[in-house]
Formats: sequence, C-alpha cells, structure tokens
Amino acid sequence: MITCDKKRMKSKIDTFSTFGDAGNGGITRYSLSPETHQARDEFVKRMKNIGAVIVTDDMANVYATLPGSEPELQKIVMASHVDSVKNGGNYDGILGVMGAMEVLETIAAQKIPHRHSITAMIWTNEEGSLYSPAMMSSGVITGKFNKVDMLASRSILNPARTFGEALIASPYMGEEKNRLNANDYVAMFELHIEQGPILEAAKHDIGVVTCVLGMVNYRIRTYGQADHAGTTPMSYRKDALYAAAQVLMYLHEELDKLDPALVYTTGEIKCHPCVHTVIPDEVDFSIDARHENPEVIRQVVEIIKNIPAEAAKCRTGSQLAWARDTVYFDKKLVGYVKESADELGISNQYINSGAGHDAQFVSYMMPTTMIFVPSKDGHSHCEPEFTSVEQCTAGASVMLHAVLKTDRQ
Amino acid sequence: MITCDKKRMKSKIDTFSTFGDAGNGGITRYSLSPETHQARDEFVKRMKNIGAVIVTDDMANVYATLPGSEPELQKIVMASHVDSVKNGGNYDGILGVMGAMEVLETIAAQKIPHRHSITAMIWTNEEGSLYSPAMMSSGVITGKFNKVDMLASRSILNPARTFGEALIASPYMGEEKNRLNANDYVAMFELHIEQGPILEAAKHDIGVVTCVLGMVNYRIRTYGQADHAGTTPMSYRKDALYAAAQVLMYLHEELDKLDPALVYTTGEIKCHPCVHTVIPDEVDFSIDARHENPEVIRQVVEIIKNIPAEAAKCRTGSQLAWARDTVYFDKKLVGYVKESADELGISNQYINSGAGHDAQFVSYMMPTTMIFVPSKDGHSHCEPEFTSVEQCTAGASVMLHAVLKTDRQ
Repeated sequence: MITCDKKRMKSKIDTFSTFGDAGNGGITRYSLSPETHQARDEFVKRMKNIGAVIVTDDMANVYATLPGSEPELQKIVMASHVDSVKNGGNYDGILGVMGAMEVLETIAAQKIPHRHSITAMIWTNEEGSLYSPAMMSSGVITGKFNKVDMLASRSILNPARTFGEALIASPYMGEEKNRLNANDYVAMFELHIEQGPILEAAKHDIGVVTCVLGMVNYRIRTYGQADHAGTTPMSYRKDALYAAAQVLMYLHEELDKLDPALVYTTGEIKCHPCVHTVIPDEVDFSIDARHENPEVIRQVVEIIKNIPAEAAKCRTGSQLAWARDTVYFDKKLVGYVKESADELGISNQYINSGAGHDAQFVSYMMPTTMIFVPSKDGHSHCEPEFTSVEQCTAGASVMLHAVLKTDRQ
Repeated sequence: MITCDKKRMKSKIDTFSTFGDAGNGGITRYSLSPETHQARDEFVKRMKNIGAVIVTDDMANVYATLPGSEPELQKIVMASHVDSVKNGGNYDGILGVMGAMEVLETIAAQKIPHRHSITAMIWTNEEGSLYSPAMMSSGVITGKFNKVDMLASRSILNPARTFGEALIASPYMGEEKNRLNANDYVAMFELHIEQGPILEAAKHDIGVVTCVLGMVNYRIRTYGQADHAGTTPMSYRKDALYAAAQVLMYLHEELDKLDPALVYTTGEIKCHPCVHTVIPDEVDFSIDARHENPEVIRQVVEIIKNIPAEAAKCRTGSQLAWARDTVYFDKKLVGYVKESADELGISNQYINSGAGHDAQFVSYMMPTTMIFVPSKDGHSHCEPEFTSVEQCTAGASVMLHAVLKTDRQ
C-alpha cells in the first residue's frame, strides 16, 4: 500500500518548527502574527510546487486544492491550524496542516488518480490565544459565532488592536465566496495530536476519533465574611476559602463515584480579597466536566446542584457558564479511518476527543472526522509536546487512504 | 472623676470622617495623600487651639505637645495613625489620634495639672496600603526597617512614585532630631479599636491589652503537572489544586486540635496557570497562625512540617515567610489602664492583640501599652467598621487617667 514519506514529513516538521521558535524547543505563533504568515508562506510555496491552486476567504483561511479528474464533484478537505498558544509545541494544529500537505504531496508524487478535487486548508485563529475565542473561524463559517463580534475581539497583548484590524492587514485576507461550505465540499478530515496519554499507554499509533465529548462548565462560589486574620476567633469566622476547599472535596468525592471515563477539572480559582492577613469573603472557582454520555453529564449537574447550601458557615452558589452536547463524527468517515489504519497494519483504537477542535463545528455542516496520533507523556500546549516522525507520517498515511476511500465512495 | 467629653469626641469623629470620605460610610485615606494632609491640618489646628507645640520628624510623624510643669521630665506620648486601608472605616487608627487629642483637650479645658509634657502623635503610614510595608515609620524609628529601603517603596497605584518622593513633597516633612526616642519620652499609649468580636460578645467597653500575639506565616506549595482538562484521564492527573485542598483540610483538622485560642488563616491562594481548561501545575497559599504562647506556635510549626510530602500525587513544600514572638506590653502601664477603667466604673477585661500596631515596635524602645474599645460585629478594615461615641469617649477617659497615673509615678 502507498504510504506517506517520512523524510518529507521530517523536512516539514523541521521547517515549520522554526516559525515562532521560542528558544526552548517549542513555539509561540499567535494568529495573524508575522510568524503565522511565515508558516502560511511556506505552506503556499510547497503547495504551489505540486500544482495546487491557492485561494483565501474573508477570515483569511487558506485553501490549496489539487484538482480532481471530475471537477464537477464536491471537494474533499483536510484542515487544521498553524497558530499556537504561548510557548506551545511543534505539533498541535500544525501537524494537521503538515499532514494535509503530505497527503497532497504523496498524491502528486505518486500520481495517485482521484476523481474529487482535494484541498489542504489552514484555519485562522483556532487557539484564540491572542484574540479570543478559540475556534473563531470555524465558529463564524458555521454560524456559531457572529462575525461582527469576532472582528471586534481585542488583542490580549495590545487592547488597542482588534482582530478585524489584524485581518485587514493580513496578506491572506480573501473573499467570503471562497469559504468552506456544504455545497462545494463533501467531507472534512482533521489530523491532530491526542493531547492525552491514552494512545501512548495502549501503545497504539492511531486514534480513530468517534466524537468530541459533551461538557458542562460551572462557576462555584462561596460567600463568607472578610475579617482580620489576627483578631477573629475561629468560632466567629466565615472563611470562604475553607468553604471552597470543603465544596471541592465534596465534588471530588461525589464525582469519583460516577463513570470512570468522566473527566472533571477545577483549573481556575479566585479568592477575594486574597490578602494573607484577611479571612477571604468570596471564592469563585470553575468546574469543567466532560463525558460522551449525556446521562453522565446529567449526573454531574445533579451533584453540582446538590452542593450543600452552606459550608463552613458560608453560603454557596453555582452557575452554569457554558455547555455543549457530545458531537459525534460521521460514521462513514470514522469507518474509512478505521479501515485505513487496519489495512496499513497500524495499531489503532477508537478514542474520543476531550478537547474542542474546528472539526467539531464543521461537523454540523458536513460529514467530518478526526484522526489522532499519540502525544508523548500526554503533554500538549507546552514546549515538551512531542510525536515521533514515524507516528506523524502514519497519521498522514491513514488520512491519505481515508481521503481516497471517500474519493471512491 | 474627670472624664473626656462626648460632644467634643463626636465633633472630631464627624469632622475626620469627611477626610477621604469614600461615599459609603467609610474612607480611603492613603498615607501622604491630600486626604491625610487634611486630617493632619485639622489635628494641628485643634492642637494649636489648646496651646500645644507642633513639631514633625523626618518620617513626617507629627507631634503636638502640651508642656508640663516640670519641663526637664521625659514626655508621655499617645499615638496612632490617620491613614487607612482602601475603603476602610472611620475608627481604625484615627480613633487613637482623636483619643489623644481628646485627652489633651480635656487636660487643657479642665486645667488638670501635670508634671510631664504630654504629646499627641500621628504616625505616618501605619497601614502600608499605598506604600508597603505596614508600620513603616515605627519600624524605621525603632530600627526594625532600613530607612533607605523604605524611601524606595513604590506606590501600588503609581509605581513611578516612591514613598521618599511623597515624603519630600509633604508639608509635614521635618527633622530626624524630633523623632520619638527613649531619652525624651518615658511611655507610649495607643488607643485602638479591637478589630474583633470579643469585647462586644462579653459586653465589655474596654480591653486592657496585655500583648501582641506571636505569629508565624508560612507559604505552602503543591507541585503538579499542567495537562488538558478534556484529554487527561483522572488516573493520570497530578492536580496541584486538588492537592492544595487536601493540604488545607489536613491543616484545619490538625490545627483545630490545638489550644482553642489559636487563630490561623489562609487568606491568599495563587493557582497556576489558572485557566479553566488546564489542570493546575502549581498552587501557593499562605497560612498565618497566631497565639500568645510560643509552645502553641511550636506545635503549629510541627503540624506544618508534617504536611504529607505528597498529596494527590503532587509534591508539597512549605517555607517560613516571617514570624514574630509575642510582644508583651509594659506591666506597670497595663496596670494603670486596668486601674483607670476600674476606677471609672467601665466594664473591662484583659485582651491580647492579634493584629500588629505601631505600639508593638515602640515597646522595644520604651514602656508601651494599648487600650482597646469594641468593634461592632468585630468588623474592621471595611466601611461598616463602628464603635459608638460613648465607647470612643470611654477609651479616651481611660487613656487620660492612665496617662495621669504615669505622670504621677
């Protein structure tokens, strides 16, 4: 069976890792920055080399298309992003772009016949690290986000600068008619690193992604009384932080009784006034819980609703911040990914995605799926993020064959 | 027995409450601000009215002295501060200054004979709310703080401005030779609000303060691994915040077994990276513990040292931030306060101070003590801070007689 080329993949990894190199083995490549433009220029150069046609849309998304033998057919697209978080790694996002390039380069080099035109695509601003929110362009194109609001999003580094201004200044700003859409495209694939430890632990090189987990995100608050740390006897205190610790212990104890596949996290905590000599009067923390099964999410919500109304003599409260239902990927495309991995003899397993991706929004618009490759030690969004060249190439090979199966369907 | 004047006290409370009025029943009166200068001007005006002599020193501390009949004797000083925390109340600090004024005004009005010269004094920057640290001037004068370091302290609102610059610009900047010192002064009294609920609960109008509690302040840290909230199974996690909650529960459980007079507080907690979709990799929190008896403080340190080395698979650590031994006030002066309250028929009790005060530094230099009056609901450092005019006046009357006993000793 035809496979992608490890040497060519390594050349891409080495080259793209220089764009925004932060000096510690990783990169900082904010959306619409000079560094992302370097990465886009490289993408365009390499894609033009194999005869791909380049267009861009009004969100500066970039499309490189290798025409098929039956141009009237809808296109097949492979997409991911080149922007990163601050001090991120060399694989999150960019691997999906390099994989898409590698598939087209393999098709071109091996002269693999294909009826459909096949597109490699770069999404603008998936991370939302400079301009919030994340998955901005796929959100706009699929109608989840309002474009006017997005254009007004301000740079966290320079609040005088809006996303809209950066977009106009970008050499990749194009026309709305070029947007990914359900008339012109028949399917989307996204190759991505797992960002977790499951594949590595199972010694599997490919994750056949079936869904993006449903989630709820709540804010939990405790309300106490700010008093002097030195003059207030213990029995008089209403300590909002002690109350928050009790609520946190309650949540861990109760949530640990649910399905073991549930993941839940308190990543953020704010304490007021946060002075070491003052008893805290208000604490606010997040709880993010994710599971494929809506029934488990319902049980999580039940547990949150049953947080004792009072803890350590402090009133408690909870508020839903946001939620999403589990997004299932297209069964036929998931099947093509599984068959391709099996046929290539690459060890694989079904897996879900705990993280959000552009593919999740696109799946509301057209058949979509994702392919995961392992993350060393499960780390991502950090400089030690790593996936071997062999695993990256295996991911591209699986995507190649899944695309070709779609082409023949 | 002669007592202070309630009407005159009320006039002072009403007037001083206007300087820095923050519009919600309290004040913001940062050290060396225009608002503190208004308060100092009012102090000087009222003290000049009764014939007091005004001098200031190189830390802008202000001294108003009513000459005694035997000018060769050392002076007796009553001192507190006019600066406040942000959105503080109308009693913390300023009550001690108003009380000192009221004592001198009573002596002048009633023509009470006194051998020693008697001084009412304003300390500069007791709160340290604009320029850190707290108790800056008493720290400098008693050699606890280095003056050069203090002059370099930067405004939290305008880091371009140093305390030294504000000091030079102050109309109250004076000469080092005028500083409070052990040669020229024989005793210091400080009238202050309790800042806790003990006197109110016991229905006592006067607290005869015996000591400032010894304390230790530690930083506790937990070290985990930052991973993605959605992609990391629970069993793989090293969640530094969950670890911190466990350590906090351990500390409460163990510290609650010690003497019930112990007070301990976690007022500050910092979580890194503090993003709701990322498992925290480092949490740092404070623990402040105070007790009169050094043996109890030793037990606290023992409990902190016995924090499990690992919690929730995270490494833990602790570090002493600072500590002070219990500072006992002068026994003779404490006795004068107790006798004065008893003789005036004012309900009273012995009490300790959990909070730090300028008197604590001064007690290393000369005989010193404090007098407490009740804080409504125990609140302080906030706008609802309240002590009735009757209680404020009772505090001044007790200070008057304790000063007169010192004068006669």
